[in-house]
Amino acid sequence: MGKKIEIPSIDDVRKHLIAPPGKKFNLAERNTADRALFGDKEDAKTSLKKDAAVINELKDVLYAIKKQSVLVILQGMDTAGKSGTIKSVFANTTPLGMEVKAFKAPSSNELARDYLWRVHNAVPQKGHVGIFDRSHYEDVLVVKVRKFADPAAVEQRYDQINAFEKHLTENGVAIVKCMLNIGYAEQGVRLSERLSEAHKLWKFNPADLEDRRMWPDFMAAYETAVERCSTEHAPWYIIPADSRTRRSALIARLVRGALEDMHLEWPDPGLNPADYEIG
Amino acid sequence: MGKKIEIPSIDDVRKHLIAPPGKKFNLAERNTADRALFGDKEDAKTSLKKDAAVINELKDVLYAIKKQSVLVILQGMDTAGKSGTIKSVFANTTPLGMEVKAFKAPSSNELARDYLWRVHNAVPQKGHVGIFDRSHYEDVLVVKVRKFADPAAVEQRYDQINAFEKHLTENGVAIVKCMLNIGYAEQGVRLSERLSEAHKLWKFNPADLEDRRMWPDFMAAYETAVERCSTEHAPWYIIPADSRTRRSALIARLVRGALEDMHLEWPDPGLNPADYEIG
Repeated sequence: MGKKIEIPSIDDVRKHLIAPPGKKFNLAERNTADRALFGDKEDAKTSLKKDAAVINELKDVLYAIKKQSVLVILQGMDTAGKSGTIKSVFANTTPLGMEVKAFKAPSSNELARDYLWRVHNAVPQKGHVGIFDRSHYEDVLVVKVRKFADPAAVEQRYDQINAFEKHLTENGVAIVKCMLNIGYAEQGVRLSERLSEAHKLWKFNPADLEDRRMWPDFMAAYETAVERCSTEHAPWYIIPADSRTRRSALIARLVRGALEDMHLEWPDPGLNPADYEIG
Repeated sequence: MGKKIEIPSIDDVRKHLIAPPGKKFNLAERNTADRALFGDKEDAKTSLKKDAAVINELKDVLYAIKKQSVLVILQGMDTAGKSGTIKSVFANTTPLGMEVKAFKAPSSNELARDYLWRVHNAVPQKGHVGIFDRSHYEDVLVVKVRKFADPAAVEQRYDQINAFEKHLTENGVAIVKCMLNIGYAEQGVRLSERLSEAHKLWKFNPADLEDRRMWPDFMAAYETAVERCSTEHAPWYIIPADSRTRRSALIARLVRGALEDMHLEWPDPGLNPADYEIG
């Protein structure tokens, strides 16, 4: 007899990881290596595999209905596992009805508009699951830390972002916001890996080391962003990200939960099959 | 001992399926149920699985290099298997670096531009694999058959399309054009399936029956499009599509071939790892 597989319910995952809306938020209290939800790594693997399969099934129904969409926002420091999450949570997901948008430094064309313009443009279309690898939160994170914008303008953005996300959720977009919370030491390990493995070297960017030196500033910016933008309509979930497998398993639970909450059913096109003769 | 698995080489698949550039093309000579390349369905399954895995690996290197892209164009009558191809050939492909664009009837905004405007806009970005579910070929297929445009204007489009595709290939986009060649009888079977299965009914569109009644006109339009637009830089491949498994296996061979022709290698960012101290 094998041991019992222990998979936390989606509700438990939410309760444990949420940054409660309207409450003070202390990032330092969140353990980046927390194993409370998946004590056993093998359980996390099993859960991830199951959820990835269910996500793929539900996504097809979402695609058929074409009325709502899911937007998964992944934020985190370099090496926190944004790409890895996309690869593992959506490993069994066909690209049909999927959109991945990686936000880089804005182009001159994008800078000629307000910071949410390019984000709105990238919102997944009805019936799709969209993933943001970074997002408009960069405009209150790196932009704030590196002072790319006037502090007074940045200060206004939290409420603007909340209004924007409320607009989206009221228009059929379910938002799942995940902060991939990696520890400083674990980032050091992963940056070293990038330098020592040929197929990871391309990901190494010397500028990442500059961000690393500003770690406390980034953590403070994340803390503020999460506290001010964790809302009832689009709460933030703080994902312990030192363990890759557990991180992905937890995010998969949240994505599955968002899809299940929609109570998706194959659409009825309102036609009577007997009326049609194929010939 | 199991039987020997017989997988045709990518070169053999190309030679067998190509519509030779500059030659007269007779669509009726192409057997929609051809099994010359994959006699045994199990071999097709094995080949598809292997190729899907290799495609996923090569796609990651393409993504890392960010200099070239692959554009897979899927054309075919309703039920020919365009969505099914995307789901099976890219079953093991993470959505990172994938773009699927389904072309529908053009919007008023798109109609306000020339017919290639929206197509150019949807070309996959460098490092990505893009899939067109339908394409600019609709502008010489349904548009021609249903006379949505002036015949003289349509007549000019073949050369325009060739010039456009030449431009793309010269700018790093490898184009794989697949006509999913399904038989009239097999389409009848599949349309009936859509009417009788709850999870397929949403795909049934009474307008498809109108296209079915114009089958000979569509076949003539396909024949002309393939003959005039099968070029050295972007040849057409005619995929026997009555068997779903063989169809996907053949297309997977072609997609893998396009990626292998690029001789992709992990990029060298030109930095010396020893120069960096992670700290």
